[in-house]
Amino acid sequence: MQLGMIGLGRMGGNIVRRLLKDGHTAVVYDRDPKAVAALVEAGATRADSLEDLVAELAAPRAAWGMLPAGAITEETVAALSGLMQADDTIIDGGNSFYGDDVRRAAELRPKGIHYVDVGTSGGVWGLERGYCMMIGGDTEAVDRLDPIFRTLAPGMGEIPRTPGREGRDPRAELGYIHAGPCGAGHFVKMIHNGIEYGLMQAYAEGFDILRHAGSKDLPEARRYDLNLGDIAEVWRRGSVVSSWLLDLTASALAGDEHLEDYSGFVEDSGEGRWTINAAVEEAVPATVLSSALYRRFRSREHESYADKLLSAMRRGFGGHLEPKQPKM
Amino acid sequence: MQLGMIGLGRMGGNIVRRLLKDGHTAVVYDRDPKAVAALVEAGATRADSLEDLVAELAAPRAAWGMLPAGAITEETVAALSGLMQADDTIIDGGNSFYGDDVRRAAELRPKGIHYVDVGTSGGVWGLERGYCMMIGGDTEAVDRLDPIFRTLAPGMGEIPRTPGREGRDPRAELGYIHAGPCGAGHFVKMIHNGIEYGLMQAYAEGFDILRHAGSKDLPEARRYDLNLGDIAEVWRRGSVVSSWLLDLTASALAGDEHLEDYSGFVEDSGEGRWTINAAVEEAVPATVLSSALYRRFRSREHESYADKLLSAMRRGFGGHLEPKQPKM
Amino acid sequence: MQLGMIGLGRMGGNIVRRLLKDGHTAVVYDRDPKAVAALVEAGATRADSLEDLVAELAAPRAAWGMLPAGAITEETVAALSGLMQADDTIIDGGNSFYGDDVRRAAELRPKGIHYVDVGTSGGVWGLERGYCMMIGGDTEAVDRLDPIFRTLAPGMGEIPRTPGREGRDPRAELGYIHAGPCGAGHFVKMIHNGIEYGLMQAYAEGFDILRHAGSKDLPEARRYDLNLGDIAEVWRRGSVVSSWLLDLTASALAGDEHLEDYSGFVEDSGEGRWTINAAVEEAVPATVLSSALYRRFRSREHESYADKLLSAMRRGFGGHLEPKQPKM
Amino acid sequence: MQLGMIGLGRMGGNIVRRLLKDGHTAVVYDRDPKAVAALVEAGATRADSLEDLVAELAAPRAAWGMLPAGAITEETVAALSGLMQADDTIIDGGNSFYGDDVRRAAELRPKGIHYVDVGTSGGVWGLERGYCMMIGGDTEAVDRLDPIFRTLAPGMGEIPRTPGREGRDPRAELGYIHAGPCGAGHFVKMIHNGIEYGLMQAYAEGFDILRHAGSKDLPEARRYDLNLGDIAEVWRRGSVVSSWLLDLTASALAGDEHLEDYSGFVEDSGEGRWTINAAVEEAVPATVLSSALYRRFRSREHESYADKLLSAMRRGFGGHLEPKQPKM
Repeated sequence: MQLGMIGLGRMGGNIVRRLLKDGHTAVVYDRDPKAVAALVEAGATRADSLEDLVAELAAPRAAWGMLPAGAITEETVAALSGLMQADDTIIDGGNSFYGDDVRRAAELRPKGIHYVDVGTSGGVWGLERGYCMMIGGDTEAVDRLDPIFRTLAPGMGEIPRTPGREGRDPRAELGYIHAGPCGAGHFVKMIHNGIEYGLMQAYAEGFDILRHAGSKDLPEARRYDLNLGDIAEVWRRGSVVSSWLLDLTASALAGDEHLEDYSGFVEDSGEGRWTINAAVEEAVPATVLSSALYRRFRSREHESYADKLLSAMRRGFGGHLEPKQPKM
Repeated sequence: MQLGMIGLGRMGGNIVRRLLKDGHTAVVYDRDPKAVAALVEAGATRADSLEDLVAELAAPRAAWGMLPAGAITEETVAALSGLMQADDTIIDGGNSFYGDDVRRAAELRPKGIHYVDVGTSGGVWGLERGYCMMIGGDTEAVDRLDPIFRTLAPGMGEIPRTPGREGRDPRAELGYIHAGPCGAGHFVKMIHNGIEYGLMQAYAEGFDILRHAGSKDLPEARRYDLNLGDIAEVWRRGSVVSSWLLDLTASALAGDEHLEDYSGFVEDSGEGRWTINAAVEEAVPATVLSSALYRRFRSREHESYADKLLSAMRRGFGGHLEPKQPKM
Repeated sequence: MQLGMIGLGRMGGNIVRRLLKDGHTAVVYDRDPKAVAALVEAGATRADSLEDLVAELAAPRAAWGMLPAGAITEETVAALSGLMQADDTIIDGGNSFYGDDVRRAAELRPKGIHYVDVGTSGGVWGLERGYCMMIGGDTEAVDRLDPIFRTLAPGMGEIPRTPGREGRDPRAELGYIHAGPCGAGHFVKMIHNGIEYGLMQAYAEGFDILRHAGSKDLPEARRYDLNLGDIAEVWRRGSVVSSWLLDLTASALAGDEHLEDYSGFVEDSGEGRWTINAAVEEAVPATVLSSALYRRFRSREHESYADKLLSAMRRGFGGHLEPKQPKM
Repeated sequence: MQLGMIGLGRMGGNIVRRLLKDGHTAVVYDRDPKAVAALVEAGATRADSLEDLVAELAAPRAAWGMLPAGAITEETVAALSGLMQADDTIIDGGNSFYGDDVRRAAELRPKGIHYVDVGTSGGVWGLERGYCMMIGGDTEAVDRLDPIFRTLAPGMGEIPRTPGREGRDPRAELGYIHAGPCGAGHFVKMIHNGIEYGLMQAYAEGFDILRHAGSKDLPEARRYDLNLGDIAEVWRRGSVVSSWLLDLTASALAGDEHLEDYSGFVEDSGEGRWTINAAVEEAVPATVLSSALYRRFRSREHESYADKLLSAMRRGFGGHLEPKQPKM
């Protein structure tokens, strides 16, 4: 089927390529004409503006934005809202906050325009192996887009089937789900990323302890100079902690066990933060997910005001500073 | 080659079976004669006592204990120490504390008896797919046992090779490593389990937030009634959080999304605790691994004294309790 | 000076009483006529409605709402907004979210009505010893209300002065501060409560460890049957951990060391949650404050879904459940 | 009564001075003759060696070591053990691990020598205001030393009495307790310090959030440039979070709100670590106390290996690194 794509970065561009390969057609727009040209060469139809893109699409239209969350997505949805008509569908495949989806869908509803949010996992691996998609929106719109999702998803592949799933929604096994009404897709993707932070931090701490097992502060008989690359590798084979993140860890450690390419400054994205806000709103104790986020915050501080205040208190009761009227 | 096995529970028994299948021979002993009989039927040689087992083994002997950590392992190693002779090897394949390995090895060294500790992951899956093994001990003893380890390990299988490992110790790719001197095997296995706790808790918290996304305390427009089984399944396909633990989660949720079979009371084993002690000793901030362990502790408390004390303080400053002399 | 008070619960009523005692006058309104009558008896002027209250106040008016945060405060501010005129002041002394203050102040600004937010600490102790107040709003309005704040605050009392404060804003030593523009008062009060949670949890955990020091799981030589009431008492005298919360703890433990009056179910209020949201928004690692909040969430769960999922995974890899196609 | 003191640092020296002032006598020894001379001038009797000190004391002797925990304490106790006789008492007033007390007491018991452990809080403030003491040991020995403890303790002072303590052990109100058998004193002191870490971290995080409330990353309408010194001061007056640590914080912030004297590198002592080990051994979830300790560990890392590994994983799935055989 036909899809309009707005935003032809790595994700948007590869999504279009995967669709074209499977016989779909695409009308593409990006602020950068080079990005458009590259996909036109791959078989897509060029659009020079959002107006142009909407004009090129046959009704009922489907226009997918693959843009940075926030202002750009907001403006694009607003512009499309003025250009599209009843029964058309706007898809937000970026990393939007699910509350924004809910608001936008409510704004579009009076016009009869559908809004579908798609949490998309897979990164640069997606072109080849497919995208894991979590979708929110009304059933009519989501079902109509099914050929698109089916093409983009990884499919069953060689991953063993989960026992006991007979009779359940077959889409999950193909790598996409209709999670619920608008916002549900980004909500589930948000939690996915929250979990990702927790998993990563668990490995990071474990390897950190292994790394320090040879510390001279330890009794000599219990000091170990461990080969972290071999440990990551062996855990990939039959252990309980095997995972894709461990595969990536083993690969990184095979390259340089000392990880000297990295500064230790770790970014975080909105999803990790929104996960904590959601947990707090639901009164769910998200101890590990919060800790993982906070460690990233801490990684970016050269000096911590909190730490300095600890020192100041220690100085206070350790006696170097003499308040004139000590309180009992 | 020939191996003596002491302790024929699920792990010990299956290890012997896997060895026998691959052409090794085994002399087996267990306090329970039925366990011995079952393995004799599978081709092992019966021993009626530790003395008998040592007598049946050809020098240099190798006797593997697969016993509960603690007193039983301790007694068995002590007994073997009196029965075996220089150049024999005692292998502890259970979940011992690595400090105990260090101590035992030091006690055996004057007698010339080798001590090898093997952290063994794989559980009941091991018979079929092999055991992931982390091995500590002196090189001579570990190398001599190599045929045993090679048989027990999963081997390369269908798991893709990690790029960049060319020229590195090939044993890691086969599923076993010689991690270092005595204790190193159990040390690495301990951290493995510590990580396992963290990973499990990350998934558990994420699904907990998903589970509560439909709570009536949330604004109606942002409430979702999510299908957790489908979510676990879709994440197995192309997402960053795919792992064996997620496979197990998907399987459990396919069976009963409400998990009504479970009380919510979660055990912990020594490894999780020792991991924290090791982190503290090394001054490594193990925030996530500790949180994961503490959540298990908390899961087993019907009432928490800490929580009661919070209530008592709240009552104090909320004014229901009237100390006679309020302090400013 | 004259103050209108809306909401005559424990806090609002006592604030009026403290003002009347010091020579101020008050016009009071509450939905409950009995609450009004009680304060009229104490010397306040009765109002039968918000309209009445506004009519009774001399311009420039000052009306203080001491109401539950959320809908009631919102409605009351909206109603007052329609009744009051330029240069009047609305004061929100409840536990509102500071973002709501910012919004309301912006809505009132075109009408020339001032909005002052007052974070008020002191509970039932406040009538006697005064209220610690953190105030947000424009300087003109805050300064005009200074006689009110001065009366309500605890004053210097017997608390020793902090060395080095010479030349600084003297109000802080009296127990109130003008923290900044609108919202700043509730922001600072919010963090106050966030810290409160952390402090309380620190004591709670410490006493929990003391409480379990006699556990039969510990080696007999290191088991202690401790007197927690005496410990709390002794720490009040010359130790680093002395505090008002410890005074309350000592008092509670003197009454019943087993805390049998308490179920262990601990409430939390908005401030603790908003503190975490603020930390996340600022990218400040609030590890302890978050942990303290989560422990309260956990205290209210009879069964935790997260814990059940841990058990389900353990069953998965421990081998009781047999997926048909185990993944490596 | 007469006391021998070994170790005349700030703590040991001031303890002797406080005893002398109250009419007790002391025999003092330190490796540093200047430290001895200073106390001789204050009225103590000089000892040139441990032998000398023991010889100068009248039986039943009481010798108090105020030495760094670990090797020096260990050696001193061992030496005293050889010099003292039945019914003498060795007191360890330093920060020893309570398990070491238990071991030492057991070693001394066959000789009839008493061993008393005293957890001592008060730092340099102790000389003037007294020491808060938590004491472990057999009742006979502890009772015999009561005149010493009574002098060293702060006494009732101006701190209001806790309601409901009538009929309880009066020593707690004077500032010392006999917590239990050997080790109990240091155990309680250990938990005291564990709590101290948690309290300090709670304040530190709260002020850190306040400090960042003016960040340019926040929406302009919700940015606050707060005066942290005034906030600390106002909370000292009638708020729930008032404490001695807050007094110290107010003092530090009055001096320099930016805390520019401090590097942010925070030490930790054994007690904080042992508290976590004790919690883990008792299966008590010590979430906040652990977090507080870990933040100190983290404060001392310039670069964190854990953080680098997060970056490496992010690079792996973000697609900059291309494993040859991506795993699904």
